[in-house]
Amino acid sequence: MAEDHSALIAKLTDAIGAAYVLTDPTDMAGRLVEDRGLYTGTAIAILRPGSTEEVAACVRLCAAAGVAIVPQGGNTGLVGGGVANGGVILTTDRMNRIRNVDATNATLTVDAGCILANIQQAADDAGALFPLSLASEGSCQIGGNLSTNAGGTAVLRYGNMRDLVLGLEVVLPDGRVLNDLNGLRKNNTGYDLRNLFIGAEGTLGIITAAVLKLFPKPVTRATALVACDGPQAALALYTRMRAQNADTLSTFEYVERMALQMVLDHAHGCTDPMAEVHPAYCLIELTSANAADTLDARMETALEAAFEAGEIHDAVIGASEAQKDALWALREHLSESQKPEGASIKHDVSVPVSRVADFITTAKAACLAHMPDLRPCPFGHFGDGNLHFNLSRPVDMDDATFLAEYPTFNRIVHDIVHQMDGSISAEHGIGQVKRAELRRYKDPVALELMQQLKSAIDPANIMNPGKVL
Amino acid sequence: MAEDHSALIAKLTDAIGAAYVLTDPTDMAGRLVEDRGLYTGTAIAILRPGSTEEVAACVRLCAAAGVAIVPQGGNTGLVGGGVANGGVILTTDRMNRIRNVDATNATLTVDAGCILANIQQAADDAGALFPLSLASEGSCQIGGNLSTNAGGTAVLRYGNMRDLVLGLEVVLPDGRVLNDLNGLRKNNTGYDLRNLFIGAEGTLGIITAAVLKLFPKPVTRATALVACDGPQAALALYTRMRAQNADTLSTFEYVERMALQMVLDHAHGCTDPMAEVHPAYCLIELTSANAADTLDARMETALEAAFEAGEIHDAVIGASEAQKDALWALREHLSESQKPEGASIKHDVSVPVSRVADFITTAKAACLAHMPDLRPCPFGHFGDGNLHFNLSRPVDMDDATFLAEYPTFNRIVHDIVHQMDGSISAEHGIGQVKRAELRRYKDPVALELMQQLKSAIDPANIMNPGKVL
Repeated sequence: MAEDHSALIAKLTDAIGAAYVLTDPTDMAGRLVEDRGLYTGTAIAILRPGSTEEVAACVRLCAAAGVAIVPQGGNTGLVGGGVANGGVILTTDRMNRIRNVDATNATLTVDAGCILANIQQAADDAGALFPLSLASEGSCQIGGNLSTNAGGTAVLRYGNMRDLVLGLEVVLPDGRVLNDLNGLRKNNTGYDLRNLFIGAEGTLGIITAAVLKLFPKPVTRATALVACDGPQAALALYTRMRAQNADTLSTFEYVERMALQMVLDHAHGCTDPMAEVHPAYCLIELTSANAADTLDARMETALEAAFEAGEIHDAVIGASEAQKDALWALREHLSESQKPEGASIKHDVSVPVSRVADFITTAKAACLAHMPDLRPCPFGHFGDGNLHFNLSRPVDMDDATFLAEYPTFNRIVHDIVHQMDGSISAEHGIGQVKRAELRRYKDPVALELMQQLKSAIDPANIMNPGKVL
Repeated sequence: MAEDHSALIAKLTDAIGAAYVLTDPTDMAGRLVEDRGLYTGTAIAILRPGSTEEVAACVRLCAAAGVAIVPQGGNTGLVGGGVANGGVILTTDRMNRIRNVDATNATLTVDAGCILANIQQAADDAGALFPLSLASEGSCQIGGNLSTNAGGTAVLRYGNMRDLVLGLEVVLPDGRVLNDLNGLRKNNTGYDLRNLFIGAEGTLGIITAAVLKLFPKPVTRATALVACDGPQAALALYTRMRAQNADTLSTFEYVERMALQMVLDHAHGCTDPMAEVHPAYCLIELTSANAADTLDARMETALEAAFEAGEIHDAVIGASEAQKDALWALREHLSESQKPEGASIKHDVSVPVSRVADFITTAKAACLAHMPDLRPCPFGHFGDGNLHFNLSRPVDMDDATFLAEYPTFNRIVHDIVHQMDGSISAEHGIGQVKRAELRRYKDPVALELMQQLKSAIDPANIMNPGKVL
């Protein structure tokens, strides 16, 4: 029998207005499912507060009623972290102001509901760069990026979301507001509260605003697609590029032919820039904020040396912005181009960079030993040690039969990751999808400590219950 | 009446050996006081465990006996954080192994007791840079650097200690060992435990090892001392240098004539590289890991533009390594050269970089209004918004009379810092010295949350009690 929440709904309506308390199933539908349709949630209501004070009021009312709260940003997560299993969904979508731009301090103060692309634009308008960049940037919100410690394609140079923020404002599970919206580069006044909420996936509180770091805008770039024999050659090349281009190496992505072929077959307008077929490719980009830097020359010098060392077979350096964009398009279409090929079993993993080549070789071999017709499509942020180790089903196997092997492949891949001191979730988080895997692989003392922190900050388990822990 | 701790001492002796449980006052003396003699502590014993397991054994025994533990590294802290008020001091000085060097992953795994200079050397031997650099690097230990989130002269480019570490090993207040010694650039498997212990000043546990990040070694640098009118001109120059030299600007330090004059008067071998006297100076350094970078030319171009814009009066660019070192020496002798001038009232503060010039002007004026003969010596990490806002006593005032004004000057300076959204402790921490100030200025919800975390992790208040909170 469903509980009667009408008293709570009435109080929430008083607090933030009837227009912003959605209870009609039609109005709620879009926020109950996630992108890929893996989860369908249920919720009493969807709350759309318009300010930090309104968020705090909602949290106080829900806490008093013992009703769970699922914070939700752009709802673009990949691990079911924003899916509600009862309780209310609280979305920050109405809180989308750029609160302050301080170009001299190189900071931007933003509401949690700001869409990432709008923040990138605001930085650009201020003559600076906000480097976080990922596939869903057109719809994901910075609050979600913060709560999941988002990664993406700029981590090699600029770090994860965690490295791009100075201060936070957070509504705690009892409705208190933590004001730590500082824009300071140095601040040692007690415990680091900020990083507790970054990456906590909304289980410790609701981030309502942040002070973000801006960086000098790159004004020149050199972009190359390079062909090589496989992961060992790619690692040698990465080591060379980092040694020679330290300050400017901003991208080092890896993809094997199988995955590239899917892009060529399915992504509109993508063509192979090389005459011959090669086993693997690296997308490399150098960037600089100094227009005088001759990055193409640097790239050529490094690649010539790599040719001579036998590390690479061919290379295409983008001669125009359009050509550079075309090389990037090959990378950007990797995920979606795997869909037409049927079901895919995905792993978002990382290992130390020194082991990334061994990992690819070992994990591919182990997966193929289990299923010889499997089509492994490893690709991703090689320079971060982070691979999207995706496995496309055999050509003639049906999706359901293949997906039934998900747990088996998880075990194969995650065991190897664990043996190599790696992580079973590099950038997507834990959410609901990886809770059991987390318990299996995480240091038991770390798990205990996480639970102690959760109990201390959210003793009633109001905030996004059933996620992470 | 002194409690009898002989049973505990016997158990500790069993656990780590009699040679490493110091109880003789003569043996203990050096670790009971801190450098400047501001505090003299008392302790039951000094423990020198030789391994993580021995640290854990000591902690378990002390916890069972209800005896407090003060973790101590190189004992170079400036806020009394390592001074014991009873209980035992646990020093990591015997734990000084470089556990692992992984040049490809650009990481170094080290025991907490490694001296910073030795870590710098190990990085150098591996062809890389560990950038943390500060005055006490010859004797401070990395465990202390971690526990205080150390800053120093390389923050502008490389960040604080927090930004230079990937993984930690920590002995918790109940003796459990948290193993999070990962060397991963991307890892989103639950709460960020690492940053909880970094900067906690030993109040949440004892850091026993860390995985540190290495960086490409700079191979070329350009170093300049620039004369200007004061903070506003320096801020304009900083903005210019950052815009033009983004990737390479690694140092932007500020000093006013008063402080520089003390160096010229007291530091052996230091001479003024300019013919005329100027109100203020900036030490600027560009560095690059790319030997082909023409940094001197970049520096000249930027400084020429600054001349034309009226931002600077004179500049000296170091023509040789010896000349560059001589310019650095002027900066490095600032602190010690203030000592012969009599008592000094010091503030380690930060504000947003956009307000650093206003802060200097406002705070100097307010201090001089209170004491017209005061000799303000503001200097420090201008590009980080972090100033050592030191005040030397009037020439003809005695030290004691001047130091009696410490609380008054604290109030003047810290009130201005607070009004400018700044921090009352940029890089030195809270320890004992700034506990009361922290309570005055910190967001009350942040203070409550810090106390909740302390109670959750160290409910018996065993770890470094009376510090920070």
